[in-house]
Amino acid sequence: MKARIITIGDEILIGQIVDTNSAWIAKQLSEIGIALESIVSIADTREAIHFALDQAISIADLVIMTGGLGPTKDDITKYALAEWFESGWNVDQALLDRVEQHFTLRGVVMPEVNRGQAMLPDNCIALTNEFGTAPGMWFERSDTVFISMPGVPFEMKAIFTDHALPRIRERFAGHHIVHSTIMTQGIGESSLMEIITDWENNLGDLKLAYLPSVGVVRLRLTGVSKFGEGLQERVDARIKAVLPLIEDYAYGFNEAQLEEVVGSLLSANNLTVSAAESCTGGYISQMITSVPGSSAYFYGSAVAYSNQVKEDVLGVDPQLIEQFGAVSEQVAIQMADGVRRKFRTDYAVSTTGIAGPDGGSAEKPVGTVWIGVSSEKRSYALKYTMGTHRERNIRKSALQALQLLRKEVLKNLGISLKEALS
Amino acid sequence: MKARIITIGDEILIGQIVDTNSAWIAKQLSEIGIALESIVSIADTREAIHFALDQAISIADLVIMTGGLGPTKDDITKYALAEWFESGWNVDQALLDRVEQHFTLRGVVMPEVNRGQAMLPDNCIALTNEFGTAPGMWFERSDTVFISMPGVPFEMKAIFTDHALPRIRERFAGHHIVHSTIMTQGIGESSLMEIITDWENNLGDLKLAYLPSVGVVRLRLTGVSKFGEGLQERVDARIKAVLPLIEDYAYGFNEAQLEEVVGSLLSANNLTVSAAESCTGGYISQMITSVPGSSAYFYGSAVAYSNQVKEDVLGVDPQLIEQFGAVSEQVAIQMADGVRRKFRTDYAVSTTGIAGPDGGSAEKPVGTVWIGVSSEKRSYALKYTMGTHRERNIRKSALQALQLLRKEVLKNLGISLKEALS
Repeated sequence: MKARIITIGDEILIGQIVDTNSAWIAKQLSEIGIALESIVSIADTREAIHFALDQAISIADLVIMTGGLGPTKDDITKYALAEWFESGWNVDQALLDRVEQHFTLRGVVMPEVNRGQAMLPDNCIALTNEFGTAPGMWFERSDTVFISMPGVPFEMKAIFTDHALPRIRERFAGHHIVHSTIMTQGIGESSLMEIITDWENNLGDLKLAYLPSVGVVRLRLTGVSKFGEGLQERVDARIKAVLPLIEDYAYGFNEAQLEEVVGSLLSANNLTVSAAESCTGGYISQMITSVPGSSAYFYGSAVAYSNQVKEDVLGVDPQLIEQFGAVSEQVAIQMADGVRRKFRTDYAVSTTGIAGPDGGSAEKPVGTVWIGVSSEKRSYALKYTMGTHRERNIRKSALQALQLLRKEVLKNLGISLKEALS
Repeated sequence: MKARIITIGDEILIGQIVDTNSAWIAKQLSEIGIALESIVSIADTREAIHFALDQAISIADLVIMTGGLGPTKDDITKYALAEWFESGWNVDQALLDRVEQHFTLRGVVMPEVNRGQAMLPDNCIALTNEFGTAPGMWFERSDTVFISMPGVPFEMKAIFTDHALPRIRERFAGHHIVHSTIMTQGIGESSLMEIITDWENNLGDLKLAYLPSVGVVRLRLTGVSKFGEGLQERVDARIKAVLPLIEDYAYGFNEAQLEEVVGSLLSANNLTVSAAESCTGGYISQMITSVPGSSAYFYGSAVAYSNQVKEDVLGVDPQLIEQFGAVSEQVAIQMADGVRRKFRTDYAVSTTGIAGPDGGSAEKPVGTVWIGVSSEKRSYALKYTMGTHRERNIRKSALQALQLLRKEVLKNLGISLKEALS
């Protein structure tokens, strides 16, 4: 079986945007055992779309298209598809109602141009778009399936996950593939590789991949077989064997985000947290609050970028700042203690460091970060060197703060790292 | 003239990496007036490479390939190219010396496998790789130029800039292409289209694209001509003509980020800002501090997720919360005023709303957000309905807060929206 992605839109061809959709779709397909034959990016002209469809039908069993489904004049994918599939048109009244409601909810009268969004080719199946006005479309011709989705990433992802993927699974039964992924934080892939090298050399036909992203390395173990019997058990057993080697870094499984893991831990134990952020500038708060329901355990934070705010809001002693500098163990600890008392939470974390690109010195180079943790039992701070890239630096510091928080909570609850992962 | 990019490698097809090389190359080509006809990503097999070359030669005048030039077994691009171009082999002694030196400099003996790196097809021109061991290659056949480069971004970029691009310029006197992009915030693409429809209908041969992302729509105007004389002026004149229609939403040009625009405005006028964030949970702070040097104008923020923090830290009157609810005009205003005084800044913004997915009511559905602005001159808050998707909701609210801040600062400085955009 062969699958192809076609992305439609000049913005990719002139390099205005990077095509992240294709990588995301490729990953989803890969996880159900469907390999892509190619990815093709083309211009948003009728000729280019028709040419791409002519080529694709002779090669691929599954063609996934993104882009060109908006309401404006440069969005011609739907009309080009209707021509190529020789479609008539239906008005989808339910969709029209949804589109109108989409605008009404925002207190806006629906612009007339959006009426066209509810016209659908009569030989496609509509794939509902929960977050926008253009639905996805599923066409079939000569045993090839063609799926067209909007290019807006979050709309596309929701359509694909909820409506396209189940149909794809049903239609194309792949090999049995079992993935299991361990999420690790605070260690690079080559250091991780050194720690687990003996284990890795004894994996037999299971396949290990290191998937690094900023601050997090995912270890993905994959088993593939024709029938699948016992496959899950074999993968699980190998995962269990490696955990004791990496429990200082592992925090969860299968795409779990550290902020979700920490949130569940706090929530399950009726604990609350606050943060005092200097160099991370709100990144920790934004991570924590990206989790729905976080208001149950997150009371808030003080982003204390200036020293004055550290003193006025968090009660940091000006003399300490004078003596040791704002980027110091002492200040990190007072920030964490201060926000915990002021915000009346059980735990608090703090960050103070030099995010870069400027502001470093010989003694405290760019990337120097102190991270503090405070609870009723104790307060402490640890020093890290996060490197010179501002965005990476901020993200890595925020992840490290959440990891320290996780370990402190586990410790106070009397839960070992091993138990936490089982 | 038609140009095509071919990227070679399974890592893109399984979604393990996002193809950023193509966007970069596309932008470079676009800047010298060469438009891409398509971008194709294929597997690293001989068959896939030969098939892609067969297709490309019948369509494109310029084919740029990346990937598959490393020393390991899965890197077969050079061998597949040599077969297709019916090449013999040359040992490039200068290159062999460089490859050996590359390892010697790192204190390592050259692995034998790297000797193959110095073998080059005898009918290509080598394009020097300053940063790695695999050079680029320039082939020609039937008036089509084929360039092959490694996939490692910094190696590719150096080869392309220093060695490929000058030859491309010389060979293909391209059409002239001029792009100009207006950044807008706070309006959807279809509403934007209604406002500018008359203008859009009189664009002649210039081409308009709407590029929406969460909270921001980019309007890109493109002119293409054989000679380029007066093209920039024509594009500029049309851009100037549309600005008065959309000045409520436009905040800048050519990929400017709103947080950068606001930062520059504050910085240039020695003004400072703080934020009181409830529903945005630190997102505004994180946006502002993502800009290097933001510590000059951003003193910090209070992420006040709980009502207690709103009262304790920001001094919001508990009776107001009781009477109007935490999501209300009154509370938004008190939050903004509170953080401005407490953090001693010239300006402050605040957000309080229901980010979702839960927590809505009939009176205040999910997506209801009050955004406050405070300065010495006045304080006010406006209500928005941001929709039901939590992440979008947060980002749109943060962008709106920055836009209100921008307008308030401009107003107090006596700068009109028109002047701000000129």
